[in-house]
Amino acid sequence: MDKPLIFITNDDGVNALGFRTLVETARRIGNVIAIAPETTQSGKAHAITMYSPLYLRQVRKEEGVEVYACSGTPVDCVKMAFDHLLADNYPDLTLSGINHGSNSAISVIYSGTMGAAIEASFYNRPSIGFSLDDHSEHADFSAASEYAEKIIRDTLAGVTDLPLCLNVNIPAVPYAEIKGIKICRQNRGFWKERFVCRQDPRGADYYWLTGEFFNSEPHSEDTDEWALKNGYISIVPIQTDLTNYPQMDKLAILAGDSGE
Amino acid sequence: MDKPLIFITNDDGVNALGFRTLVETARRIGNVIAIAPETTQSGKAHAITMYSPLYLRQVRKEEGVEVYACSGTPVDCVKMAFDHLLADNYPDLTLSGINHGSNSAISVIYSGTMGAAIEASFYNRPSIGFSLDDHSEHADFSAASEYAEKIIRDTLAGVTDLPLCLNVNIPAVPYAEIKGIKICRQNRGFWKERFVCRQDPRGADYYWLTGEFFNSEPHSEDTDEWALKNGYISIVPIQTDLTNYPQMDKLAILAGDSGE
Repeated sequence: MDKPLIFITNDDGVNALGFRTLVETARRIGNVIAIAPETTQSGKAHAITMYSPLYLRQVRKEEGVEVYACSGTPVDCVKMAFDHLLADNYPDLTLSGINHGSNSAISVIYSGTMGAAIEASFYNRPSIGFSLDDHSEHADFSAASEYAEKIIRDTLAGVTDLPLCLNVNIPAVPYAEIKGIKICRQNRGFWKERFVCRQDPRGADYYWLTGEFFNSEPHSEDTDEWALKNGYISIVPIQTDLTNYPQMDKLAILAGDSGE
Repeated sequence: MDKPLIFITNDDGVNALGFRTLVETARRIGNVIAIAPETTQSGKAHAITMYSPLYLRQVRKEEGVEVYACSGTPVDCVKMAFDHLLADNYPDLTLSGINHGSNSAISVIYSGTMGAAIEASFYNRPSIGFSLDDHSEHADFSAASEYAEKIIRDTLAGVTDLPLCLNVNIPAVPYAEIKGIKICRQNRGFWKERFVCRQDPRGADYYWLTGEFFNSEPHSEDTDEWALKNGYISIVPIQTDLTNYPQMDKLAILAGDSGE
């Protein structure tokens, strides 16, 4: 069988250790083409670039690996792949990450890593976003790489239900301490922000956004947040129908006077 | 009864006609405090600003209306309201828009207008995103304003089920031609992009992202896209648990060898 074609992107930028680790991991399985943002795009969610043009430059080309840098967001990188560079040769699988920092619970909605993974799944090819629960620049990705390889191989071999988008979060512990893999649901919780106010040299106030996550259900063992904090790798399958179906009937009053 | 406090933001920027229309509409109902982005933030989705500080400046203050401009994204504006400016006095309702251009179907996931509305709903206060199906700068918002006022009043008076986040899309036709309001589900479809390639003055290629929406279910009359294209205002209640529950059982293979 031909080697699979694996497309890779991320949100920490083309030079991030987690991205380079994922490229090397995927090389062991297939041919890799990657487009990553030139600079950090953390927190860029599902943003696309509408009011400036995009540049694309090749930064690496060798047997089985091509890497490009794009001036846009993670979702731009995915569109650049599927609608331009690989438009005639869709990849068999898209990977995003490995992110420096977790994307469990509601963080999925702010995450550029997951924005890219979600976007790729719209093209009816499987996608996986990987995140390590360690924000540091020089985090240890060795266990994450081993588990990512297993999850990639198992997905390519055995998962046929499309669309498929997986949110994988990996605890920042040595390989031997990872207790296993759990299929989870998204934890409920929220970010409470605090703005740090400073004065610029001209005397004007400016603010840094800084937040803290509050887990609304810390004891729910079926959630990604619980799994991650208890030594398991969490996998949440993702969908993008945001309709609140149970709420629809309760809103009849809003359609009331209009003949609905 | 005291006048309600209404917070307003948008993604087209503080000078957009749709935003100014919504401020004037909301003034007829309550006291208004608004924080809108300094510049256009279309397509910014749920992005937050992590690597640059935010500035906030007051641009208008008169009886019952205060308007600020923020250097960040629509979601930053919401956080700036709930975690800074209005931290001790949460608004009764958040409005986002009125967007120049529709945000039906999967566009909800790319939309800065809806990113802001969704974020506001995390603070356990109702929120409504309004979008008019007309991208033009000088679009006619008169019918949108009348219907927005009705929906705002009905929501304040009669909807008590929280969290509540509504995605409201309004057809760009005169008031008399709007057939009514429909409570809908999110249409299934996708954006197919085309990159327009040009050369900059230095000879380097650059790309403009330009896309077209494909409706995967054009005849489904219960969707927002159908309602909007057939003269109705669509209202989709929004939730943010992205878990694909039906798919969880099919992924057991991925947890297989790990003692799960």
